[in-house]
Amino acid sequence: MSSIAATADFALIGLAVMGQNLILNAADHGFTVVAYNRTVSKVDHFLQNEAKGKSIIGAHSIPELIAHLKKPRRIMLLVKAGFAVDAFINQVLPYLDQGDIIIDGGNSHFPDSNRRYAELKEKGILFVGSGVSGGEEGARYGPSLMPGGHEDAWPHLKNIFQSIAAKSDGEPCCDWVGPAGAGHYVKMVHNGIEYGDMQLICEAYDIMKRVAKFTDKEIGNVFAKWNTGVLDSFLIEITRDILLYDDVDGTPLVEKIMDTAGQKGTGKWTAINALDLGMPVTLIGEAVFSRCLSAIKTERVKASTLLTGPPIPDGIVTPENKDQFVDDLEQALYASKIISYTQGFMLIREAAKEYGWKLNNPAIALMWRGGCIIRSVFLAEITKAFRETPDLENLLFNQFFKSAIEKAQAGWRKTLVLGIQYGIPTPAFSTALAFYDGYRSARLPANLLQAQRDYFGAHTFKVLSEAASDNLPLGEDIHINWTGRGGNISASTYIA
Amino acid sequence: MSSIAATADFALIGLAVMGQNLILNAADHGFTVVAYNRTVSKVDHFLQNEAKGKSIIGAHSIPELIAHLKKPRRIMLLVKAGFAVDAFINQVLPYLDQGDIIIDGGNSHFPDSNRRYAELKEKGILFVGSGVSGGEEGARYGPSLMPGGHEDAWPHLKNIFQSIAAKSDGEPCCDWVGPAGAGHYVKMVHNGIEYGDMQLICEAYDIMKRVAKFTDKEIGNVFAKWNTGVLDSFLIEITRDILLYDDVDGTPLVEKIMDTAGQKGTGKWTAINALDLGMPVTLIGEAVFSRCLSAIKTERVKASTLLTGPPIPDGIVTPENKDQFVDDLEQALYASKIISYTQGFMLIREAAKEYGWKLNNPAIALMWRGGCIIRSVFLAEITKAFRETPDLENLLFNQFFKSAIEKAQAGWRKTLVLGIQYGIPTPAFSTALAFYDGYRSARLPANLLQAQRDYFGAHTFKVLSEAASDNLPLGEDIHINWTGRGGNISASTYIA
Repeated sequence: MSSIAATADFALIGLAVMGQNLILNAADHGFTVVAYNRTVSKVDHFLQNEAKGKSIIGAHSIPELIAHLKKPRRIMLLVKAGFAVDAFINQVLPYLDQGDIIIDGGNSHFPDSNRRYAELKEKGILFVGSGVSGGEEGARYGPSLMPGGHEDAWPHLKNIFQSIAAKSDGEPCCDWVGPAGAGHYVKMVHNGIEYGDMQLICEAYDIMKRVAKFTDKEIGNVFAKWNTGVLDSFLIEITRDILLYDDVDGTPLVEKIMDTAGQKGTGKWTAINALDLGMPVTLIGEAVFSRCLSAIKTERVKASTLLTGPPIPDGIVTPENKDQFVDDLEQALYASKIISYTQGFMLIREAAKEYGWKLNNPAIALMWRGGCIIRSVFLAEITKAFRETPDLENLLFNQFFKSAIEKAQAGWRKTLVLGIQYGIPTPAFSTALAFYDGYRSARLPANLLQAQRDYFGAHTFKVLSEAASDNLPLGEDIHINWTGRGGNISASTYIA
Repeated sequence: MSSIAATADFALIGLAVMGQNLILNAADHGFTVVAYNRTVSKVDHFLQNEAKGKSIIGAHSIPELIAHLKKPRRIMLLVKAGFAVDAFINQVLPYLDQGDIIIDGGNSHFPDSNRRYAELKEKGILFVGSGVSGGEEGARYGPSLMPGGHEDAWPHLKNIFQSIAAKSDGEPCCDWVGPAGAGHYVKMVHNGIEYGDMQLICEAYDIMKRVAKFTDKEIGNVFAKWNTGVLDSFLIEITRDILLYDDVDGTPLVEKIMDTAGQKGTGKWTAINALDLGMPVTLIGEAVFSRCLSAIKTERVKASTLLTGPPIPDGIVTPENKDQFVDDLEQALYASKIISYTQGFMLIREAAKEYGWKLNNPAIALMWRGGCIIRSVFLAEITKAFRETPDLENLLFNQFFKSAIEKAQAGWRKTLVLGIQYGIPTPAFSTALAFYDGYRSARLPANLLQAQRDYFGAHTFKVLSEAASDNLPLGEDIHINWTGRGGNISASTYIA
């Protein structure tokens, strides 16, 4: 190995499609990359084909990979999240020096990244967990990169990462996210939001198909139109393409696809984290549950023969009211999307507080602005909002989004009413509106709930400041003997 | 200790209000109970007061407690879930013989009970994790008890447990649930359903208050009326009491209570477990998130001054349409409740499959029928449904519930439309309807979602059986090159 010159800027382990594409992308930007894969034949195949003639070196062993690297060594893993990440870290570790950098670019769960960050920090190795989004195309031509971890690594990564990342209005969709597992955390929320966006689009499609009885061509054209307005985004664009794509028999392919959604778990992680942090991220929750409901197709088919709903007559949407219907639906989708991102940033804000991370909200919005699956014009507005007010408490407090949602709400409500009247499920649209109406309620009915908890479990309650009195003192935990029976002991170890 | 006669039927450790009441309950039924508490002065105080003259013995140490017990020894812990349970188990363990029984009656998380069951089984000790519900009153006069764990323990517990449990139509609300942590699992789902029921009641109250502008007395009387019909239940009954309860100044106390809901985490556990098992238990999810939203009151108060909604004029509900409005609302609450229990039993069914437990659905419904917080006439119908068809796939497939929800749906939809039009949040009502309409949809829009996933991530899809063809073969994972660009590799390690 001693004859090998240390000429490579970084190493990439894991030559699945994402890894290969990231390497090609980096090579295009003038970096020298050393490529390694557990199944070594993949290295040779890659070097003889896609990588041929580029500044890409193949390594057949970890020592060989190490020997090629300039210092500090930068080694990126793009392997299956979980066991394989730890296994590769343990494999490279004996060859590393203090200050060398390991980047996990896989879909790791952020608590794992927190752990790896801490373990490697003890050994003097700089761990970075980086979200990578954009699919195959993104990896090849400009992904969104969300790196977080040991901050000392960033100066050594910034140039490479920002060079290969997508650009939005000339700015790279990559910046330092924050400490420990913050990069993977933000990627997790990204994926949760992606679940939400996809579900919202599906609900819009379902209403157009079942209530308005549009053909797929008509629906595709609606998405095409929407893609020129406030909803302009990658997911709307591909939805257009999908709806306009015909099978060999000339009918829309999408109608032949089994309606059982798969999932890889990152949406679920976001929903679970929201529950753990006590943040009402309801739209992602509903999006995940909608995939679950879609998956029990056999039961649904049986239920469809047993359970009735309202009839859906023809002519609900006519040539006369069609434009209005489509506009209302666009507003429903737009408003719900605003709520989803509002909830996502509420979660990120709470995570920063809970985990003691200093996070950069404008940078997060910018990283999602391009390259990734949720890229959109919309995210430029969010970036702007956070740049104007870096400590913005809530997206809805920004004038742009406040106005947008207020303007959208009439159409949003009308669309929901249509869905309810004709029995079309709109779980994500509905939960978004329930959140909006709840969030803007100074008083929610939780006073009754607190009374119930105190009644059956002596859980105590607090009094509203404006209602405090001698017998209901402000700030104190108050228990009332609602029945006149039982004791006055408030339950410190109450079991509901 | 050798002079102590082993006369006690069982021991109870932990003399908070629930523990004291369970002991008094058992003594009333002729059992001799030995009582112990870490803070020993509590034992003396209890013995000299509430326990005086009853078949209750005080123990000042674990060896003393052991010496009092007949064999096999039955020791019940009613201590704070978590560390304290393990600590007490470790304290009593050295004194136990093979076949002795430890019962954890606290609100333990079922994975902990799974672990304790397995650990103690290795040592020849029979572990039982038992849900206990009913609050102070229930513990004293008849709780719902949900024991699960080592089945060999059941013959030694059955008489005691069924004697002290609540009775419903003469049957005890206690039966053997299943192996390992199944008792605590079923208790967890019970608590999740309790969250749902409470949220539904709060939404009904909020609509009556804000849309119909009823006084609390009027609302209390509506709940009183509902408590004589299909909604007859403990929670409806206490809601009536609460709304009719005036503060010393003669105005309703409930309106003075701070509208920020607390939670102890068991609803959250249910929602997280539903996400983990992939079951769409959306109503409990929304109920938990609603408590979270209520908790960020400061933000809501600010939002209420910034974000607008539709006006709520007087006279929406008039003397002429009032009865219809109340009936519709009752139907909305009833239908949503049917959905919530449907989802809860779907979750239990999936858990049985996932964890390899044989669970007794009719017994579960019967255990919830009386004694516990969610006790209701409604649960008698569920018990009946599962007794008629023990392997009932879904509650909605039972004729009674199918008819009930179909009859309820017109009022349910009308109520939701009112909420949407006037900006009153009804997250639980809404998600219940979305579930109903989704569940009875043979086709959901997840076909589009699968196409999107295949488009950006080469995730592949399956074809509908009726649409299969040579180029779209049935049962296979199909990938389409939707754009004409990129590769045809389906991503085994795709990163979204």
